[in-house]
Amino acid sequence: MPPTDPVNPTSPTQSTEPESTRNLSGAALTDAVLASFAHGDSPRFTAIAQSLIQHLHAFLVETRLTEEEWAAAITFLTRVGHITTEQRQEFILLSDVLGASMQVIGTTYPCVNGETESTVFGPFFVAESPHFANGDDIARGAPGEACHMWGVVRSVEGEPIAGARLEIWQADEDGFYDVQYADLAAARGRGHLFADDDGRYAFWTIRPAAYPIPSDGPVGDLLKAARRSPMRPAHVHFKITAPGYRPLITHVFAQDDPYLDTDAVFGVKSSLITPFERHEPGVAPDGRQMATSFYTARYDFTLAPTDAA
Amino acid sequence: MPPTDPVNPTSPTQSTEPESTRNLSGAALTDAVLASFAHGDSPRFTAIAQSLIQHLHAFLVETRLTEEEWAAAITFLTRVGHITTEQRQEFILLSDVLGASMQVIGTTYPCVNGETESTVFGPFFVAESPHFANGDDIARGAPGEACHMWGVVRSVEGEPIAGARLEIWQADEDGFYDVQYADLAAARGRGHLFADDDGRYAFWTIRPAAYPIPSDGPVGDLLKAARRSPMRPAHVHFKITAPGYRPLITHVFAQDDPYLDTDAVFGVKSSLITPFERHEPGVAPDGRQMATSFYTARYDFTLAPTDAA
Repeated sequence: MPPTDPVNPTSPTQSTEPESTRNLSGAALTDAVLASFAHGDSPRFTAIAQSLIQHLHAFLVETRLTEEEWAAAITFLTRVGHITTEQRQEFILLSDVLGASMQVIGTTYPCVNGETESTVFGPFFVAESPHFANGDDIARGAPGEACHMWGVVRSVEGEPIAGARLEIWQADEDGFYDVQYADLAAARGRGHLFADDDGRYAFWTIRPAAYPIPSDGPVGDLLKAARRSPMRPAHVHFKITAPGYRPLITHVFAQDDPYLDTDAVFGVKSSLITPFERHEPGVAPDGRQMATSFYTARYDFTLAPTDAA
Repeated sequence: MPPTDPVNPTSPTQSTEPESTRNLSGAALTDAVLASFAHGDSPRFTAIAQSLIQHLHAFLVETRLTEEEWAAAITFLTRVGHITTEQRQEFILLSDVLGASMQVIGTTYPCVNGETESTVFGPFFVAESPHFANGDDIARGAPGEACHMWGVVRSVEGEPIAGARLEIWQADEDGFYDVQYADLAAARGRGHLFADDDGRYAFWTIRPAAYPIPSDGPVGDLLKAARRSPMRPAHVHFKITAPGYRPLITHVFAQDDPYLDTDAVFGVKSSLITPFERHEPGVAPDGRQMATSFYTARYDFTLAPTDAA
């Protein structure tokens, strides 16, 4: 039976309560569905649900979507659900290639205080990663050329943030994250460490490579149907947290990558690009003796306070 | 790299090709995503993808959806995917409660030729069902009061359709479909049979009961958050197919059900309602001697030709 609460006055898309849900189609059907969401748990839930209904129905009506096409969409979403595991989040990948992730990030983190810009979280984050000491090698045998990354984590006032936690994950030179290998027993090119008392972090890893996003699932099929490039420019993922500061989820991109202007997930910000400099064999910045050529890259992060807009 | 095909002239939402996908937000980001779908496999794919992008981005921007809210949406969709099996299609259930299924059915099957109206397919169809002879009992022990259903399958010109195949499935008196029981080895209240040379079908079953749609999954949680009733009026599902005719997917609803005007999935059409008449113990219409009271219900179906609009 229809709820009898008064219509929520804060909702932007109120409709008159229909007398019956029977024999409805087109705009009358949309109105009845809107009305069914008019009495939700909170004004925010109601507003989100009603905006979703308006746009979902408008999409179906505008395109005159057929039952066969809708069934194909449901099969697609089912495939996205079934390929999603703790190690692979295909719904996030879908959100990424539709530009939805970046649209939400732009709203959530407008970057008005000089903090480091955010970008997509991506589908390959893993909650539990190995702990490393500052300066360690997180590659743990991942194929690629050695690379020393370092920098400082600071507040928007320029103060170093001692003890900031950095979660780091990246693809190897073949373009694969550790979790994309079926037979790996341990993490590789993935870990977390803490900035020192001067806010400084450093670690050895491998130079990241540009790569195609996974093409063996439904999102890969979508990009093929759209004839879109699946390539992402080379990057290293960072999630940085510290008490009193807003979590920062971002990438550091490699300068001169050919895909910086055609990222499949629309995630590149110019402020996140840094040079990965090649060096001949010799002594690395941390004193390590390198028998092969290697790279260095520096990026300093700036965290916004928790109470930032 | 961006595709170089000429922009498809039939697409309704063309955008100028952006020079770069870098540093985008708001409307510029939406335009870049639209442009990325401008060169799809077919004009129809492009039109559907671009309408979807327009509405998805408008929804995100209008609601100023936060990253936390979007993450909750992705968790919700992941739960929908993970609870979906061959026996339970939670994405269809979601489409049903959002009114999307009925919106699509209204577009696909406008019912201009006098054929029987369509309604939602629902989440509990199973592709392989037991075969019965016309007149058999498909209940096979499902709990409920005996009910004899019968009728004629005809063309819109009134000709009987001999050999029409009827797939039938329904809930028992406790409101559960066979596939909702974890321990059932065989189908119950589910099967298929064929109309006789006069287009006549008949079978014994149990009287269907009104029931709440499944509340143990994410769609149940959505209805709770919306404070919506999960109840559906009592009905029997039919999928009817015959060579030369458009497949018909519909329900027959029980007259006088208290939920006919508040169906949780907006699926009721007045033309699909029929009386389920109660009879004292005695001789049933097919000559069967009934020791208990029983019900009878008649519904005649009309199929549209394959070439109908």
